[in-house]
Amino acid sequence: MKYDRTYNFSAGPAMMPEEVLEEIRDEMLNYRGTGMCVMEMSHRSKAFLAIYEEAVADLKKLMNIPDNYKILFVQGGGTMEFAMVPMNLMKNGVACYVETGTWSKKAIAEAKKFGEVNVVASSKDKDYTYIPDCSNLDIPENADYVYICENETINGITYQQLPNTKGHVLVSDQSSMFLSRPCNVEDYGLIWAGVQKNVGPAGMAVVIIREDLLREDIGPKAPVYCNYNTHAANDSMYNTPNCWAIYCVGKVFKYLLKNGGVEAMEKKNIEKAAVLYDYLDQSKLFKASAEAGSRSLMNVTFRTGDDEMDAKFVKEAKAAGFDNLKGHRSIGGLRASIYNAMPKEGVEALVAFMKKFEAENE
Amino acid sequence: MKYDRTYNFSAGPAMMPEEVLEEIRDEMLNYRGTGMCVMEMSHRSKAFLAIYEEAVADLKKLMNIPDNYKILFVQGGGTMEFAMVPMNLMKNGVACYVETGTWSKKAIAEAKKFGEVNVVASSKDKDYTYIPDCSNLDIPENADYVYICENETINGITYQQLPNTKGHVLVSDQSSMFLSRPCNVEDYGLIWAGVQKNVGPAGMAVVIIREDLLREDIGPKAPVYCNYNTHAANDSMYNTPNCWAIYCVGKVFKYLLKNGGVEAMEKKNIEKAAVLYDYLDQSKLFKASAEAGSRSLMNVTFRTGDDEMDAKFVKEAKAAGFDNLKGHRSIGGLRASIYNAMPKEGVEALVAFMKKFEAENE
Repeated sequence: MKYDRTYNFSAGPAMMPEEVLEEIRDEMLNYRGTGMCVMEMSHRSKAFLAIYEEAVADLKKLMNIPDNYKILFVQGGGTMEFAMVPMNLMKNGVACYVETGTWSKKAIAEAKKFGEVNVVASSKDKDYTYIPDCSNLDIPENADYVYICENETINGITYQQLPNTKGHVLVSDQSSMFLSRPCNVEDYGLIWAGVQKNVGPAGMAVVIIREDLLREDIGPKAPVYCNYNTHAANDSMYNTPNCWAIYCVGKVFKYLLKNGGVEAMEKKNIEKAAVLYDYLDQSKLFKASAEAGSRSLMNVTFRTGDDEMDAKFVKEAKAAGFDNLKGHRSIGGLRASIYNAMPKEGVEALVAFMKKFEAENE
Repeated sequence: MKYDRTYNFSAGPAMMPEEVLEEIRDEMLNYRGTGMCVMEMSHRSKAFLAIYEEAVADLKKLMNIPDNYKILFVQGGGTMEFAMVPMNLMKNGVACYVETGTWSKKAIAEAKKFGEVNVVASSKDKDYTYIPDCSNLDIPENADYVYICENETINGITYQQLPNTKGHVLVSDQSSMFLSRPCNVEDYGLIWAGVQKNVGPAGMAVVIIREDLLREDIGPKAPVYCNYNTHAANDSMYNTPNCWAIYCVGKVFKYLLKNGGVEAMEKKNIEKAAVLYDYLDQSKLFKASAEAGSRSLMNVTFRTGDDEMDAKFVKEAKAAGFDNLKGHRSIGGLRASIYNAMPKEGVEALVAFMKKFEAENE
């Protein structure tokens, strides 16, 4: 790599495409003749509005988003979304959640503040190492929505097929898989994603919401900021948005379009993940943590079974230029997050290093 | 100026120091040997934690913040703060607000959702062109706090002295004057400021809160994100913060420390504002909008009294390299925001241009 850059396997914030960073660098002191940096621009200026509009249009193209969906840029990350989803969508005060790990559990805890939460499926019995069967869920008639975390970053599991919601609205947290593969937006009522994993810098979530789910009045004690309609009715500029993040994700959207879109990303991501999983499946030292049918293409979790050996691996890998391979502090073990921006060579180099480490530690 | 940069008089986002932008540019592809951009760093990595800790320590030094105050970095901007202040501080459900323009009115409207709001002073009678007398406010005994917008960006007015709160907690929105002059933090229970005006990129507010005002439980329907204690108890990293903004404001803090701190900024800001107000006070074409005793050092509002002439001025000024001189769309007129990063030469050049424009339009 140029610039002596590290192979960064962080679960997020995470790698961004090098050519995107180069562009951002080159536009820092004077963005395209405006005489200012994007950070210095009024969000209501022509130059910034063009950046915003292109970002929205490019995302629409990338994901083939129908016209009856709104794209919102919202601050506060997943923690804010965990609250905003029930605050906005619980009309009847009833929702269903699928429990698959830390992030769905946090969403469940927050939703309980705002109404009745039915956990309709769970993989708790096996420490969230698989996605439970969601083909015949027991969904109350009056449920406002069914919520999933489509890729659980910590345990490294992902849905191979969407739940059968029996006609109810599907809400998905796509944070750690956003734009990693095609998805049919019409299958969802709402998709949200923190952008700091697969798309850009931390500090913003993208929300894609079907317009009929927007409500002007979501209750007398809901902050203005927490109403999706505040953002939808004002093109994400009711107040000053995270302009820098919009600028950066816009560049990543263009990069993806130029490089074959999400279809090409999926192909590349399948190849990349296979390099790692194939090795793990035959390794005597490392074992993949997630069940075969639920494995994430983005977050590959594994462990040696010996905490000291795991720590030794993390340390030696870092010294060799492979950073952030430690598993999430809540579950330990090891994890390689290989988002869109991680080149295949990075994964191949990691596997070569793992083989060497395995040989040295037989 | 280098880089053919514009004199940008935007009310926010606004100018940042050129040398700060240069540093950011130079660290883009590889931050100090980490092999990654700050945007790509795990917020829990050593490199990023060092950035965070330095930013907090430098701000503490700059503002001389006592140890019993916490510094928080929160997303959602002023709109989120308008709700979070009453959600967190209304223990008795009663607060007092001083009404001085758009931003205090927005804060009042949001606070009414959460309790009883007493507007204890207002400058509505003269279209918010002055700060009302706050020396003897009628504050209920059980009021949880007295809230002010210390510098109203739109009308360009600022407090010359703080209200007499009669022992009650003072809460201040310092967004458009943050770090523009010394302030005695102990006079306040809570100071918050959107950083996109005087300090850095949009997408983050700094909150400085006295520890005894933090409460673990702020009610059963408050989102986790909206509790200041969530952020205080986790060093602003309960969830992924706006890391990029922390990095950028940290650089601005260092720049300010290196350049004499807020004392030096105040001196420079008084000089800069005087260049403009002195001219306005003798101009036959332009008139300052704010009353003499309430004038902001940051946002200088003025008008010709003729909307077409105002528009002509904005257009010709822009062509001459002076951008964003249009007043806020809600009140019209003209406005020059001259935050810390606007060099004195920029204001002098603007006044020279205004004199020329005045001569041409007698």
